[in-house]
Amino acid sequence: MFTITFRFESGEPVVISANAGEKLLDVARKANVAIDAPCSGNGVCGKCRVRLVSGYLDAPINRHITSEEYAAGWRLACLAQISGDAEIEVPDIASAYRSRMKMADLSSPEEIALFEDLRRQLEEAGLAFGSDLSFLPLELTEPTLEDTMPDNERLLRAIEAAAGVDESAIMLPYPVLKDLSWVLRESGFRVKCVISRDGERILVRDVLPQSSTEPMVGFALDLGTTSLAGVLVDLETGKILAKASGGNGQIRYGADVINRIIESDKVGGRKRLQDAVIKESIIPMLASMYRSAGVNPRRIYRMVLAGNTTMNHLLLGLHADPIRMEPFVPSFFRTDHLYVRDIQLKMNPLAELIVAPNIGSYVGGDITAGALVSMIWNRPEMSLFIDLGTNGELVFGNSEFLMSCACSAGPAFEGGDISCGMRATDGAVEACTIDKETMEPSMTVVGGAAPAGICGSGIIDVIAELFRCGIINGKGKFIREGARILHDEHGMGSYVLAWKKDTGGVKDVVINEVDIDNFIRAKGAIFSATQTMLASLGFDASVIERVYVAGGIGSGINMKNAVTIGMFPDIPLEHFHYIGNSSQTGAYAMLLSSQAREKVFELGRSMTYLELSNEPGYMDEFVAACFLPHTDSGLFPSVRVEP
Amino acid sequence: MFTITFRFESGEPVVISANAGEKLLDVARKANVAIDAPCSGNGVCGKCRVRLVSGYLDAPINRHITSEEYAAGWRLACLAQISGDAEIEVPDIASAYRSRMKMADLSSPEEIALFEDLRRQLEEAGLAFGSDLSFLPLELTEPTLEDTMPDNERLLRAIEAAAGVDESAIMLPYPVLKDLSWVLRESGFRVKCVISRDGERILVRDVLPQSSTEPMVGFALDLGTTSLAGVLVDLETGKILAKASGGNGQIRYGADVINRIIESDKVGGRKRLQDAVIKESIIPMLASMYRSAGVNPRRIYRMVLAGNTTMNHLLLGLHADPIRMEPFVPSFFRTDHLYVRDIQLKMNPLAELIVAPNIGSYVGGDITAGALVSMIWNRPEMSLFIDLGTNGELVFGNSEFLMSCACSAGPAFEGGDISCGMRATDGAVEACTIDKETMEPSMTVVGGAAPAGICGSGIIDVIAELFRCGIINGKGKFIREGARILHDEHGMGSYVLAWKKDTGGVKDVVINEVDIDNFIRAKGAIFSATQTMLASLGFDASVIERVYVAGGIGSGINMKNAVTIGMFPDIPLEHFHYIGNSSQTGAYAMLLSSQAREKVFELGRSMTYLELSNEPGYMDEFVAACFLPHTDSGLFPSVRVEP
Repeated sequence: MFTITFRFESGEPVVISANAGEKLLDVARKANVAIDAPCSGNGVCGKCRVRLVSGYLDAPINRHITSEEYAAGWRLACLAQISGDAEIEVPDIASAYRSRMKMADLSSPEEIALFEDLRRQLEEAGLAFGSDLSFLPLELTEPTLEDTMPDNERLLRAIEAAAGVDESAIMLPYPVLKDLSWVLRESGFRVKCVISRDGERILVRDVLPQSSTEPMVGFALDLGTTSLAGVLVDLETGKILAKASGGNGQIRYGADVINRIIESDKVGGRKRLQDAVIKESIIPMLASMYRSAGVNPRRIYRMVLAGNTTMNHLLLGLHADPIRMEPFVPSFFRTDHLYVRDIQLKMNPLAELIVAPNIGSYVGGDITAGALVSMIWNRPEMSLFIDLGTNGELVFGNSEFLMSCACSAGPAFEGGDISCGMRATDGAVEACTIDKETMEPSMTVVGGAAPAGICGSGIIDVIAELFRCGIINGKGKFIREGARILHDEHGMGSYVLAWKKDTGGVKDVVINEVDIDNFIRAKGAIFSATQTMLASLGFDASVIERVYVAGGIGSGINMKNAVTIGMFPDIPLEHFHYIGNSSQTGAYAMLLSSQAREKVFELGRSMTYLELSNEPGYMDEFVAACFLPHTDSGLFPSVRVEP
Repeated sequence: MFTITFRFESGEPVVISANAGEKLLDVARKANVAIDAPCSGNGVCGKCRVRLVSGYLDAPINRHITSEEYAAGWRLACLAQISGDAEIEVPDIASAYRSRMKMADLSSPEEIALFEDLRRQLEEAGLAFGSDLSFLPLELTEPTLEDTMPDNERLLRAIEAAAGVDESAIMLPYPVLKDLSWVLRESGFRVKCVISRDGERILVRDVLPQSSTEPMVGFALDLGTTSLAGVLVDLETGKILAKASGGNGQIRYGADVINRIIESDKVGGRKRLQDAVIKESIIPMLASMYRSAGVNPRRIYRMVLAGNTTMNHLLLGLHADPIRMEPFVPSFFRTDHLYVRDIQLKMNPLAELIVAPNIGSYVGGDITAGALVSMIWNRPEMSLFIDLGTNGELVFGNSEFLMSCACSAGPAFEGGDISCGMRATDGAVEACTIDKETMEPSMTVVGGAAPAGICGSGIIDVIAELFRCGIINGKGKFIREGARILHDEHGMGSYVLAWKKDTGGVKDVVINEVDIDNFIRAKGAIFSATQTMLASLGFDASVIERVYVAGGIGSGINMKNAVTIGMFPDIPLEHFHYIGNSSQTGAYAMLLSSQAREKVFELGRSMTYLELSNEPGYMDEFVAACFLPHTDSGLFPSVRVEP
């Protein structure tokens, strides 16, 4: 046995024993040391870089490590084997695309418009806002020696009188009973109840003094494979009280759902994966939101979760392996009767957890919630809804029918698998043009700061511009030379968007051939899925009258450039609309509107699911689409490389 | 600040700092050191004896401590004040009447008859056995590529088909969903569900492999102020799987409900009192029962609790002070929708907690459950049901009406407040006669062992015999001398039932004048309550056609002797029946029979409650009854002191 010591930028070192030959990444996981490993330890992504400070480690050099870096001790944890005592420096887990939790600025007009527009659209479509939760103010008669009715009966009688339902149909569970005596006496028997009505039945969820000014709060969570985004909402007014986004802590168990399922199936894995997202991601995000909004968690009465099938299974701690193994059967599509306490989140003890329904093993609640927001179910036009996440999902149809499918795009759209990738937060290059002659870039950076990395929309622009300017060819290889074009010792080309000497950053912001290749595979997956789904219906892209694009790719997405690189079909640009994070806005709508929630469940039941891997032409379509814009340039008549 | 060290017969010492003048009992409670203090620190009961081993303690001598004992370091913790560093020896908390947890011998014919008789009687009264819980065996079709229905839907469809209810009326909550995928696959999709039906609704409570042989178990608990008694029951067959009794760990916060409520109202008190009964008493009792019966706690699907109003409030962690303070209003009489998890007991996560209803602040679920068992609600005869607990409760009436009242008897009937008192377990003197000439006793001891103490029925016998033999007078003072009559330095007389040299015990088994006085007050409370209740109805004792006596006083209770000491009215002896622990058997019936449960709730609604303290004659009745047999000997024509 050898002694392995992990050191960090901050915090105490972690020491663990390990056997010769063990993989360093496994040792780190055993010690609960967080090392990014989006490819789950196959030496492909290069994210699990650690530095050998002293001691021994048996690790090869690799294309992700230059010889200079190797000499400085850098190794890939997934390729390193224990061969002696070692002291390992672990970089901050908050790597580029697993950026820190970020609170949104609620005063920005964009933020306000986002939810207001949605509400207007849903109301126009006949889905009223308003849920089954409400405040019920009550003034009780105080007990006397002549009236010694117990507290709970006193309250039940008052509710019976105020709400007009029979006492026997009113439920007053333990968490309310527990402090009832105290609240009644503290408030002078003037209280307000938080109740929900289901037909003739009333559930009492809370009893507060009538003087309390605390709002009735809901939590909507978009749980993505790579990132999560949450909002706290005043359930009476619909007002956003706090909004935040952050990375999914499960990333160190793999970037895609398959690797995470494999990890979750190991001994103790379900718990580890569940803890990684709840304890490392959701709880800290909630804590920040509580602080910023001054919200007491006990006043959160409902949570809506929208996430893909694997994410909601792993969050709930369910056995996910059957999702991955033939015949691909999840534990649930639709599940009721869940409570927030079931996943050990501390909100109101009676808070429900409503999960947007899944419709297949690879099309989940993020898509049913997102499809609501796309409004394609309410329109006669043939429309395509595309959610660009780690999984790419598509829904095609109109008010008559809806078909969905999913493809594995990888984390590239959210900045993952891209060396300088990041989410669309401060410092991200979100748009870019390149001068064909000088090859100099002009960039738009989120927050107006110095560029620190590139988000999805920026990557589309950079690749489209490099291609348009003839700097890279259709395979994504560099074919021009210049001041901003670098080649490493293996001959791999890269383009420098920003020099560290100019930005004051720790490294240059670059995009290299591996990044471009990763992105081409991601966009190829999306395009081939589109083609295959249309073909299964006997259609081609010309039938598409509207395209709604959603996801964390960034609101700056340039549709023309997305068509240029062959990501979206070559149809008139005015037919494209970016609708933001529709999974999150869909969850918000489900929180505030019982009718919207019903509609999402109805969409889940009515949508058909196309399993792409069962479609004979899909792999060929994918290979053909892994080119700029496509091996069949006839599909992209509008795309031309400038002469 | 001084340093106080508590030492124990076994286990590590506990060290805590304390200020000069602090009461030692309070310091012990702060340090979570268990010292019996049934009178809650008023120097009355003498139970909080500790020994000063070294150091200083400011403590007076007291009638409970002889000068010999004082010299040996014995002090009452409730009267001792900190005056320097001190080292204190704390006797084993399992004092005489707080005896150790005891498992019942289920093979004894008495035990078997107890529950079988009850069942027969209830069935004769038209209350069928059988609850809403049942096993539902299911064989599901295995999923294929052509049938990828999710697991929960597959199960719901199978239940729908087998049980004939609509899928939408079947609830499948998280604890079942959590392991569903695993159970289905492990069992080859052959499972059995534990379900409960409520009209057209079905709740799925568990899913097990069809091969599982584990029974469906229920837990019935009689929670007394001094003792508790529990049974584990097979819910399908009614078979008793384990039965145990033990002391209530709250005893160190006071012997009666009033002192406990006062303690619970201090900072952190609710939690302390709740922990004392749950963690120190219920959980260890359950652990022994699980072991002895080989029961998996997850298979316990329901718990029924029968206890007095204060006990069920303190167990639930509710604010109990309003019970004690005018206008005496509890949080509840009847409460539904409670779960075992609400009190942090680990059984099946969906197990309900059913609480036998209270009917007043001082007549609780032990009496409504017990009244069921007494069967007085089913008979035309005027009957009196007496539950001899720390509180004495009475129910009088017949199939036409029922009236109840309560009086504070103290723990004497269970052996408390009696220097050699104990519960009716092994070693307890349960019956006794005394030879008038020689004054020598003949005793019956529970379990046939050497006498270690006296239980309630034994005390009745000893006092009745001492009185009959003219050894004590009507005030309970010794008026004869003899080898077995001792007097201490204060002149207090006592009678030695068994010498330690003969029993091999650590001390003589005696009964002294303080014990007799305590017992006379207890019996006086019961008799005066009977008289007052009858008088409120315009009756006297002659109307009573049957008396049903319940409680932990012991099955050996000699009704003639109980009449002799003036505890029960002087009516023909054949009208008296001892019915055992009716609170426990009532809880058992509620567990197994939905109809019996309904009947208990109906009894709770129909019984009237007489508040004795509002009755003008009650205090005079009590004073008159504190005499052997009574100051008005005309009430007891059959009682004669032998000449």
